[in-house]
Amino acid sequence: MSDSNGYDQEFLDWLTSPAAPLHQVSRQEAEARQQQLTKPLGALGDLERLVIRLAEMQGRACPRADRVAIAVFAADHGVAAEGVSAYPQAVTAQMIANFANGGAAISVAARALDARLRVYNLGTVTEPVPMPGVEHCVIAPQSGNLAVEAAMTPAQLTQAMAVGRRAVESALAESTGVEVFIGGEMGIGNTTAATALAAALLEQPAVALAGPGTGLDSAGILHKVAVIERALALHQPRADRPLELLRCLGGFEIAALCGAYLHCAQRGVPVLVDGFICTVAALIGCRLQPQLSDWLIFSHCSAEPGYAVLLDDLPSWPLLDLGMRLGEGSGAAVALPLLRMACTLHEQMATFDEAAVSGATG
Amino acid sequence: MSDSNGYDQEFLDWLTSPAAPLHQVSRQEAEARQQQLTKPLGALGDLERLVIRLAEMQGRACPRADRVAIAVFAADHGVAAEGVSAYPQAVTAQMIANFANGGAAISVAARALDARLRVYNLGTVTEPVPMPGVEHCVIAPQSGNLAVEAAMTPAQLTQAMAVGRRAVESALAESTGVEVFIGGEMGIGNTTAATALAAALLEQPAVALAGPGTGLDSAGILHKVAVIERALALHQPRADRPLELLRCLGGFEIAALCGAYLHCAQRGVPVLVDGFICTVAALIGCRLQPQLSDWLIFSHCSAEPGYAVLLDDLPSWPLLDLGMRLGEGSGAAVALPLLRMACTLHEQMATFDEAAVSGATG
Repeated sequence: MSDSNGYDQEFLDWLTSPAAPLHQVSRQEAEARQQQLTKPLGALGDLERLVIRLAEMQGRACPRADRVAIAVFAADHGVAAEGVSAYPQAVTAQMIANFANGGAAISVAARALDARLRVYNLGTVTEPVPMPGVEHCVIAPQSGNLAVEAAMTPAQLTQAMAVGRRAVESALAESTGVEVFIGGEMGIGNTTAATALAAALLEQPAVALAGPGTGLDSAGILHKVAVIERALALHQPRADRPLELLRCLGGFEIAALCGAYLHCAQRGVPVLVDGFICTVAALIGCRLQPQLSDWLIFSHCSAEPGYAVLLDDLPSWPLLDLGMRLGEGSGAAVALPLLRMACTLHEQMATFDEAAVSGATG
Repeated sequence: MSDSNGYDQEFLDWLTSPAAPLHQVSRQEAEARQQQLTKPLGALGDLERLVIRLAEMQGRACPRADRVAIAVFAADHGVAAEGVSAYPQAVTAQMIANFANGGAAISVAARALDARLRVYNLGTVTEPVPMPGVEHCVIAPQSGNLAVEAAMTPAQLTQAMAVGRRAVESALAESTGVEVFIGGEMGIGNTTAATALAAALLEQPAVALAGPGTGLDSAGILHKVAVIERALALHQPRADRPLELLRCLGGFEIAALCGAYLHCAQRGVPVLVDGFICTVAALIGCRLQPQLSDWLIFSHCSAEPGYAVLLDDLPSWPLLDLGMRLGEGSGAAVALPLLRMACTLHEQMATFDEAAVSGATG
């Protein structure tokens, strides 16, 4: 396929590697257990479906969501030059420092959840001071301006996706069993890239997807639509060429997310997907390797309007709809306690027999 | 008003006591803090609104949801004789034992959340063995069969609501500051009572509200509708007489919930309301004392179809929609981590100044 131009074979082999197999026996055991617990069958709703999915992913009748690895990928975007964000580009680097110092939403949430947090700096226009907890994986100060050129070269895309792969490997190397992986992103201008990607992938007009991002007004959104339309006209992206689409319209952190998700599926790690940008990265991953969808749990409906358009293409429904639109992995972090509660209820509730409770009649 | 027939004056005075005042200054302080935190304004969506509401209820700029009191009210219903439930009536008493033994969903959730759990037995047909953690507050073995008589006498209604009041007092006596109160219920037949109450309160036909409860099939639901229609025809309840409506169509545990909620508002304790039955109890409370609505946070959209009809009357939108329909307070318990995360993010995130992050431009 023409997507392979400029990529080495090892990268292409990794990209299309199969996902780890799901465990049918564990799934059946979890389903059977749900039928015995002291509650009307199905009364825990999505929490039942969730724990059954985690069981088949983790290969045990009573799965857990305790050991959680969060990786936030940060990068600047050339398209910021088009004036598509309410915030100056310096904020990307400033927020990397805020992540490391523990003041950002995802940092606070990671502490509260006792989750491992690592930040990956894939390249910022203003270089942040080296800090503990921030991995220096700089590809370039920023991606190319997708309105006038490809966001990445094949080499840059390879590098960016490898950062995601490495983030998963690093989490697995540190903990014997990562039970949930959460990816997050930071990058001024990245809703423009993600919206362009979604428009190309879903073959929808930019105007149906574009939104305020961090806070554009309606004139700002119209300008953003025009920038995305220029990019789409320039690159003529094809939905059946997802890798090329990601290269031309994406960004370093979006590619890293996509690589991380694909690698989670290969290594058998359940993924809790954050909002709009992460979900776009996940959908591209699913086009590259359809088995990825088995490993994805969608955490929340982002308030970014484009998310509503993504919904039809999601393999499962998001857990929360709280009007969040912060990124960083924050929506996934907010949803994590639902996974934990689903697992705890499943493991610790008494069965009808244990509790000597009568079952349904008739 | 004719609702006062048969009630002593102290009870009526308590019922209509004003709610504690909200703290406007704390609200403003919380709003101001939200504007300074390192995120686009509004990006935490409902979590921002939630923490601001908790601030005005608790009277502090940084509220908490750590100290949580859960009270589960259990009682049997005379209407069970009409065959309106998928489970035998003995399950109410069996589940009281399951609550006390730690095997029920709410017991597991309470442990996981480090919340105080008390169970109030207001009367069951099969008497459970006395157990630690279960308060014996028996009014009668069951309420009257609402299809043929009033569910409660005025004296029974007074007693049942006082149990709710006492549950709140007991929680407050034990802990210096209860930060959130969760009420739960258990009672075979109680979706029939709650549906009859909702139909009367919202002036809707029973068929628009009735659902499977713990698991009726469609013939069972039609039978349930007919039973509720008989009750409505018999009692001719009026929406402008909420106390009489509660007495004729309710049940001991529903009345206790209503009393507990009213007392929470009087004592300044935020309430996290569970699903269909609890929400009906809360709506009746709001008719008795409209200020109650300021103290209610709705936790989740129950899968019980009647809940969708309640939505229009709710003063605020529920946090979750996970298809749960278990009762016991379980949906509120599942939503509690959202309150905790909202409080933690609010308190611990850095401000733009603290983190030296640039604000929005233009």
